[in-house]
Amino acid sequence: MSLKNDLYLRAHKGEKLERYPVWLMRQAGRILPEYRAVRSKMGGFKELVETPEFAAEVTIQPVDILDVDAAIIFSDILVVPEAMGLPYQMSEQRGPWFENTIRTEEQFALLDKKIDVHERLSYVFEALKLTKKELKDRVPLIGFAGAPWTIFCYMVEGKGSKTFSESRKLLYTKPDLAHELLNRISDVTIDYLKGQLEAGADALQLFDSWAGILGREQYAKFGISYIKKIAEAFEGVPLTVFSKGAVASLEDIAKLPCSALGLDWSMDIRTTRELVAETKTLQGNLDPCVLYGTAEFIQKATINMLKSFESHRHIVNLGHGVYPDIDPEKVKVFIKTVKNYEF
Amino acid sequence: MSLKNDLYLRAHKGEKLERYPVWLMRQAGRILPEYRAVRSKMGGFKELVETPEFAAEVTIQPVDILDVDAAIIFSDILVVPEAMGLPYQMSEQRGPWFENTIRTEEQFALLDKKIDVHERLSYVFEALKLTKKELKDRVPLIGFAGAPWTIFCYMVEGKGSKTFSESRKLLYTKPDLAHELLNRISDVTIDYLKGQLEAGADALQLFDSWAGILGREQYAKFGISYIKKIAEAFEGVPLTVFSKGAVASLEDIAKLPCSALGLDWSMDIRTTRELVAETKTLQGNLDPCVLYGTAEFIQKATINMLKSFESHRHIVNLGHGVYPDIDPEKVKVFIKTVKNYEF
Repeated sequence: MSLKNDLYLRAHKGEKLERYPVWLMRQAGRILPEYRAVRSKMGGFKELVETPEFAAEVTIQPVDILDVDAAIIFSDILVVPEAMGLPYQMSEQRGPWFENTIRTEEQFALLDKKIDVHERLSYVFEALKLTKKELKDRVPLIGFAGAPWTIFCYMVEGKGSKTFSESRKLLYTKPDLAHELLNRISDVTIDYLKGQLEAGADALQLFDSWAGILGREQYAKFGISYIKKIAEAFEGVPLTVFSKGAVASLEDIAKLPCSALGLDWSMDIRTTRELVAETKTLQGNLDPCVLYGTAEFIQKATINMLKSFESHRHIVNLGHGVYPDIDPEKVKVFIKTVKNYEF
Repeated sequence: MSLKNDLYLRAHKGEKLERYPVWLMRQAGRILPEYRAVRSKMGGFKELVETPEFAAEVTIQPVDILDVDAAIIFSDILVVPEAMGLPYQMSEQRGPWFENTIRTEEQFALLDKKIDVHERLSYVFEALKLTKKELKDRVPLIGFAGAPWTIFCYMVEGKGSKTFSESRKLLYTKPDLAHELLNRISDVTIDYLKGQLEAGADALQLFDSWAGILGREQYAKFGISYIKKIAEAFEGVPLTVFSKGAVASLEDIAKLPCSALGLDWSMDIRTTRELVAETKTLQGNLDPCVLYGTAEFIQKATINMLKSFESHRHIVNLGHGVYPDIDPEKVKVFIKTVKNYEF
């Protein structure tokens, strides 16, 4: 089963490419009118995530409409804590929130101990199978999960936060409990990602959205060590680690046993390239706000970024998920600029 | 008029000290029961900020109760946009919000063009005079303002944000308007800080709370250049610049013409010391969450931090404002540990 367009996968391997592959974080959903049209016929966000036919449809939309070089399954990182026994709600206005949180040993004990990921998250695997089939091998399909630290934050905090001080508090006051919870999350995540590969994912990405809230020492201990554990379970699999905001930890992140690093728009490409040399592919990192500019401006900014690459080992993306109010036509300008760029 | 305890000011000058000075961002208000007792008798947060007698009282409280080496005036960075013609409300739950925002030339034109800072912000100057008098020269008094980029974010966004994408959008789509607004904010801020010095402030600090949301190039252009303009207006005045989260820009920040840099807990002290050598004092940077730990833990973590200093040119502080639910007794442990530490 060979892919018609395998640029994204070859970039992970560091192979010589004809041009840079390009896709966008959050390309499935949000910005596309075609997504909103399908969505308006259905219920809330979680219902969409849990309906394989819907998830498959909107996963493929950006391949058809935006002509990206990879598809990423439409899902949510919070399906993992839910599978662990901590259900959540998604509110349009306030974002995700959990009725229960894990801040004590007693609360930790209430989590389900042994869980069958295949049963609990079957809807994600179904969505992957369906997508894989309907994609007809046009482009690779990326599976994903939240990194343990970010999932930990949601389970401790119960919602988003400006400081994540409850989560960070636990690292100082109950480090053993923190490690227990992080270990549990990591194990479930490994099972979950294995299931995603079995269901048809060609590559994986870990999203560590709240990496930047920790100092270097703590991120090494409570963040990177668990990402490492996961990465070691997927040797040989194309795996991207995106530690958003963790500029202070780039040196440590550079040593992770994964094939690619995602960079946010504040991370310097040259500095990171020096750290990883040619051992890793870098993914990113145009400021998503550039896409608010004119077509000419987007072309110029994109070409400037491409010119700054000192190696060909790159996957082009934004430095963050595409923002919901971005005009899809502007996204197309970005993608076309990358595709037309000659090495 | 000589201060009984001028450690903080001498640290700014790089003089030889007997021990490190220590104070806490957000030490005035929030954590002290004595603050809450006074506050409960009065109205909302803004009324407190606008009442010089109250502001003076709670500014001095931490000097009496926590034994800090400097007082910082109880106020709010958002008094500046309000003085410029953009009033705001402070909601206990949602934080600050502005009914009007500045996203177009038309909206910018609605701001008051020439403002008399002395008249509009007289309550802050009154509070400083009163505080200075009542402090009886025990410790220096710090005045402050938001850095232009952070004030810009509030004026454009109208409230806090996870991405500040409206503010960043303006930098790409209307850079001239962005510079006009940033210039206006800078000019008002210079007037405001001059007034604070005249009213009795011994030193100044600029808070750039949202510095970390910009990449290096953009922070240089839209953040640092305006901080520089302000810093140049205060040559010889002890001035601390705190660019929270701007790890990617440390090299540029290190070149600012100010006497001290504030470091958040994710910024590496050694790296920053290398960048500034002995030209600047560093302020910070214990993770505020350490204060959730036991007294023994706080002592150990504080001493670890102090031992990591490779120069004596330091002012000890947390890496962020003290969190509201921290026990004041824990703050005292932190302060005593610093005071008892022998070089």
